[in-house]
Amino acid sequence: MRASDLYPHGKVVLRDVALRDALIAAKSYPDTAGKIDWIRSQHAAGLRNFVIGVFMPEKSFPQYADVTNLISLVKTLDSAFGAVVTLSEKGMREALVSGVPEINCVVSASDVHSRRNEHRTIEEALDTVRNACDQREGKAHRPVISVSVAVAFGCPISGPVEDSRVLEVVEKCIAAGVDIISLSDTAGCAVPAQVSRLVSGVRNLADSRPIGVHLHDTRGLGLVNASAAVDAGATILDASLGGVGGSTVVRGARGNVALEDLAYLCEIKGLDTGIDLDKLLEARNAATKIMPGETFHGALIKSGRPIFEQE
Amino acid sequence: MRASDLYPHGKVVLRDVALRDALIAAKSYPDTAGKIDWIRSQHAAGLRNFVIGVFMPEKSFPQYADVTNLISLVKTLDSAFGAVVTLSEKGMREALVSGVPEINCVVSASDVHSRRNEHRTIEEALDTVRNACDQREGKAHRPVISVSVAVAFGCPISGPVEDSRVLEVVEKCIAAGVDIISLSDTAGCAVPAQVSRLVSGVRNLADSRPIGVHLHDTRGLGLVNASAAVDAGATILDASLGGVGGSTVVRGARGNVALEDLAYLCEIKGLDTGIDLDKLLEARNAATKIMPGETFHGALIKSGRPIFEQE
Repeated sequence: MRASDLYPHGKVVLRDVALRDALIAAKSYPDTAGKIDWIRSQHAAGLRNFVIGVFMPEKSFPQYADVTNLISLVKTLDSAFGAVVTLSEKGMREALVSGVPEINCVVSASDVHSRRNEHRTIEEALDTVRNACDQREGKAHRPVISVSVAVAFGCPISGPVEDSRVLEVVEKCIAAGVDIISLSDTAGCAVPAQVSRLVSGVRNLADSRPIGVHLHDTRGLGLVNASAAVDAGATILDASLGGVGGSTVVRGARGNVALEDLAYLCEIKGLDTGIDLDKLLEARNAATKIMPGETFHGALIKSGRPIFEQE
Repeated sequence: MRASDLYPHGKVVLRDVALRDALIAAKSYPDTAGKIDWIRSQHAAGLRNFVIGVFMPEKSFPQYADVTNLISLVKTLDSAFGAVVTLSEKGMREALVSGVPEINCVVSASDVHSRRNEHRTIEEALDTVRNACDQREGKAHRPVISVSVAVAFGCPISGPVEDSRVLEVVEKCIAAGVDIISLSDTAGCAVPAQVSRLVSGVRNLADSRPIGVHLHDTRGLGLVNASAAVDAGATILDASLGGVGGSTVVRGARGNVALEDLAYLCEIKGLDTGIDLDKLLEARNAATKIMPGETFHGALIKSGRPIFEQE
């Protein structure tokens, strides 16, 4: 597969990350049927891209144990694509044989974060990316390989991360042969000017590869940063209904950007996401029943679209 | 007084509007002591500009009955300035003799909204502005006169409002002699490109007059629009702690922009607001006790500023 099969040129793609992000530390989580409901209601609203889990040891991470099953189920939905995250060489090897259309590797831009979060050095993470790119070539379905650069806008442990550090990681990933580069605001501390600058920096390196951002709404700037990102050329935006998940650094704070608010932002910016906002709000209403333990936020669910009396 | 006495050149001024906006339809409201506490805690954080009420018939609007008292009390705080809103000729005449440093007149950009909300035509509202500008010249303290253009980004009754309509109102206000023009997103439907366009349009008409925006966060775009506004040259931003007030069109939705989140946005954009964010968060914590009946929103109060372990 090619990146453009999953992320068509000219479209801004909103990618649902809840089934990975909201489950990381969840005490309860939906079963496979609930997960498919979660995906299906958004698919009915026009969403096509879903991060559906992580390849992790089943014993320690039972919430992701059904990921292989989910990969097959997503394939039954028209033009829907699942992506699975890998955080280790072992996870990558499982992903390669799983038939998943997109393998999402993670490389930290900060050494201390890489060691603490993924128990490996940045160079080891890059080796896994290189191996993934080499080994997928032999596969019949040839999965797309994306890299999310963690802590690209600041590290919760070591603090500010220099642009040059981020772009060095990006350059190595592109040299390895990855198809998509995404920048993650892991710590929720990104600043709009920084988002513009870094997305532009990646664009200069990435040729025609799609560029993504995984922004958090921790300090209320999720949409401000998303707006800056698409203005600078990012076309893949991670989010989740009600913003569930993503609050890994500051417990109790907002985590991900609320997907429905982001869809509204894109609509009023005149961007083609293929999303039916009214159906997405239906999905958002259903979502609280599928993940009752999560805290949902977001504005549009309370306000609805603008309605004018005399229209 | 001159506009620059209240809104110094080179500064972005965050103006607290809670004591007007959150009280419009409030069932309970703080007494004068509570209102002064509300102002004082923000003043301690560096805030200098406060909209403190409306000149309205006391019988129907007892929540604003102490506005004259408040005008005097605000004057006891170092470099603090109160503004009072007027919605009628009678209110304007009361404001002129009240000694308030800023009289904030409202002119709608939509006829039907003007008639329904202020019970007068746009032309009648403009006449009041003209009278205010004429009559203040004789006053010893010469109040600054600002105009808020209501429904500048769309009317909840008649729908979209053309830029030319807004700029026509602005032009007439400037011809009348007003010192400050502010654009209000009454319906909470402003779009960032529209905000940029209209603020730029006002700049072309306003010479060196400060330009303000009164944005709502109804659909989660308060900060996106605020960012666009300051980028386009607006220097007065209305807001309130926790975003209280302002939800007049869609009940239950977010209303005003959360002042503390806006202060954070300005800080990371490198803008000088004179606000101490940590002290402002103290004020935000105290605020819920002063207006216990209000729904507070906002992100920063939950997350705090970014903290890095190794700093």
